[in-house]
Amino acid sequence: MTKRLLLKNLRLMGDTSADIAIESGRFLQIAPSIAPQPDDIIEDCEGALALSGLIDGHTHLDKTLWGMDWHPHAQGKSLQQMIDTERALRHELDMDAKRQSARQVALSLSQGTTAIRSHVDIDTDHGLRLFEGVAETRAHYADVMQIEIVAFPQSGMMIREGTTELMDQALSDGADIVGGLDPCGIDRDPKGQLDAVFGLAEKHGKPVDIHLHEPGEMGAFSLDLILDRTEALAMQGKITVSHAFCLGMQDHARVSDLLDRIAALDVSLATTAPASRPVPSVAACRERGIPICAGNDGIRDTWTPYGNADMLERAMLVGLRNNFRADVEVTWALDTCTVDAARIMGLKDYGLEVGNRADLVLVDVGALSEAVTLRPARRLVISAGQIVARNGQTVSKWQAA
Amino acid sequence: MTKRLLLKNLRLMGDTSADIAIESGRFLQIAPSIAPQPDDIIEDCEGALALSGLIDGHTHLDKTLWGMDWHPHAQGKSLQQMIDTERALRHELDMDAKRQSARQVALSLSQGTTAIRSHVDIDTDHGLRLFEGVAETRAHYADVMQIEIVAFPQSGMMIREGTTELMDQALSDGADIVGGLDPCGIDRDPKGQLDAVFGLAEKHGKPVDIHLHEPGEMGAFSLDLILDRTEALAMQGKITVSHAFCLGMQDHARVSDLLDRIAALDVSLATTAPASRPVPSVAACRERGIPICAGNDGIRDTWTPYGNADMLERAMLVGLRNNFRADVEVTWALDTCTVDAARIMGLKDYGLEVGNRADLVLVDVGALSEAVTLRPARRLVISAGQIVARNGQTVSKWQAA
Repeated sequence: MTKRLLLKNLRLMGDTSADIAIESGRFLQIAPSIAPQPDDIIEDCEGALALSGLIDGHTHLDKTLWGMDWHPHAQGKSLQQMIDTERALRHELDMDAKRQSARQVALSLSQGTTAIRSHVDIDTDHGLRLFEGVAETRAHYADVMQIEIVAFPQSGMMIREGTTELMDQALSDGADIVGGLDPCGIDRDPKGQLDAVFGLAEKHGKPVDIHLHEPGEMGAFSLDLILDRTEALAMQGKITVSHAFCLGMQDHARVSDLLDRIAALDVSLATTAPASRPVPSVAACRERGIPICAGNDGIRDTWTPYGNADMLERAMLVGLRNNFRADVEVTWALDTCTVDAARIMGLKDYGLEVGNRADLVLVDVGALSEAVTLRPARRLVISAGQIVARNGQTVSKWQAA
Repeated sequence: MTKRLLLKNLRLMGDTSADIAIESGRFLQIAPSIAPQPDDIIEDCEGALALSGLIDGHTHLDKTLWGMDWHPHAQGKSLQQMIDTERALRHELDMDAKRQSARQVALSLSQGTTAIRSHVDIDTDHGLRLFEGVAETRAHYADVMQIEIVAFPQSGMMIREGTTELMDQALSDGADIVGGLDPCGIDRDPKGQLDAVFGLAEKHGKPVDIHLHEPGEMGAFSLDLILDRTEALAMQGKITVSHAFCLGMQDHARVSDLLDRIAALDVSLATTAPASRPVPSVAACRERGIPICAGNDGIRDTWTPYGNADMLERAMLVGLRNNFRADVEVTWALDTCTVDAARIMGLKDYGLEVGNRADLVLVDVGALSEAVTLRPARRLVISAGQIVARNGQTVSKWQAA
């Protein structure tokens, strides 16, 4: 049996001063003061603020170039150009999916992230190789990082014959979620793609997470098709729409109606809060009880040079994008990286409460909002009761090659 | 005479490997290898990337709460609400302008900023007190931070009688630039305010920097009035419009015409690249040769909880807002915090060239773009030849109380 870990003198989500005892990967006790026992491993937290483990609800572990030589970006900006560039560069650059996904996971641990939903490319060029690499990383980090894998048809399904069969195989081999992508914009066959996606979901009894970059009314059309199928197949609570730029369009009445339907069907949203695109309003989602999580999306990959895996930084970007200034609003931004993301990932034992999985991040700040606005190096990160990072550095056991 | 400072083994703006010798506050020599002399102070830069000193082209040194207890934000979001909240809170909180501006300057030095244009509130409630506090800070940091002060009528000019006279006094007492603010939206008298602003500029022979938050056609109307006066008074090259949200409006033909006129009159722009507002396109400005600089605006003040004074982070936000992904585009984002800002501030001896003022920042990254996307703690910051910060910490001499 592992020793009890006793965290002394921290502040729970910014307010109450408390001690926390952790045993067997769970929060054993949370109280104003807990007396040490002889065998305890004791950490003096010196008044640091404790957050629940951060969650990256939308990323691509197979895409990152982290730890490789700097890749100069020069590709075009259309979605199709970026897709094609990446598929080609995967051959030219040494983008080993196992190694690279491990690097991102290790980096994420150092930033306090303890759960990740990762889309992983499935295409007829690379087959299941990328999925297999990320699955190996998932197995390696299983003790300290909860990873969901979405079988993601990045290069299209209908326009690349054989992709649906590969996704079917990935879902049999352990992918958790059926992915999809711009059924109009990329596949030019919305009915075809969505029938295939929902067909796989029915067959495997697995949820769906669809990238929907399509803007304006085209996106709204695709979204309605997704909602139609959610309703027809009674898949309430099992569908996530990622990006959903169409929900940032100018026609507020149309957006309001779409959001009402999304809420009624218990569909979730994921956002990266991009500054250069229209986005769903986090406040409008909250008003309706729609769970909306944040994700880092690509981190230093062939699409974008940005990204550092920090979900507190992502919370800041959510806050800035949504013009959240009041402290209560900044906590809404943080919710997209914590409780809302946990709800979407179905992490039922999430949060700083006795009995829950002991995922926790300590930051040396005065207030919850300051954690988001200042984003200092994480003082301590605990995942499932294990210390996985300290002072912004992943502990040696969990570093990547 | 001070000793020569010899920086060995750095990379100039990301490319060429070089040594740099600094003497009497200037770059004395830049060469692939410089032989040490007996009295040299030598810094081994271990291949770090050298950037020219960063410039914050739009901030408010009198507003920050940095170093004070966390102030929970709860105010409304309209411009008028935020103005009124701040004016009141200045009395409730201990917002000493001298102390607080020094804190922000010291923080900025730690991040590699060596020049700042700061707007400072002038109003009939606080008189010249805030200006005087910031002026004291400017004097204290004169050796290592080039600070321009804009006499800024934050609470309005026409709606607060006596403000114009106070601005007149501030300009006589050492304020460098005449400020202005939303002549329609706040002052409800665009002709009145702009005549007063340009009147002060003529009287004192000083440039103008006007906050223009007004959106859409109202902002375009105000902008045209500004450009009319620029032309009539032959003030080409002396006018900056800050924010200019109207230049982010949907009517692209109208925006294009406005930008053409701005270029023809050699007017400059300043942006904070806010994610939640329309903004001028940096690329569209570059195409026309319009200088556009970036600024942090308020840093942890009564308006916003965000901000850390890091101009590399601001460059990232400019990049994200403008959807800059290619390496060359990321350097455009950096230009808004370096060369374009220097041009707007009229810093003629700016940049990593022999004879120029020795302002330089070292970062341990592989590429210029990585400086923006990773934003590591600054390895070394040199201002006018002095080492002012190391490893992200301001040296003790220049720390603030």
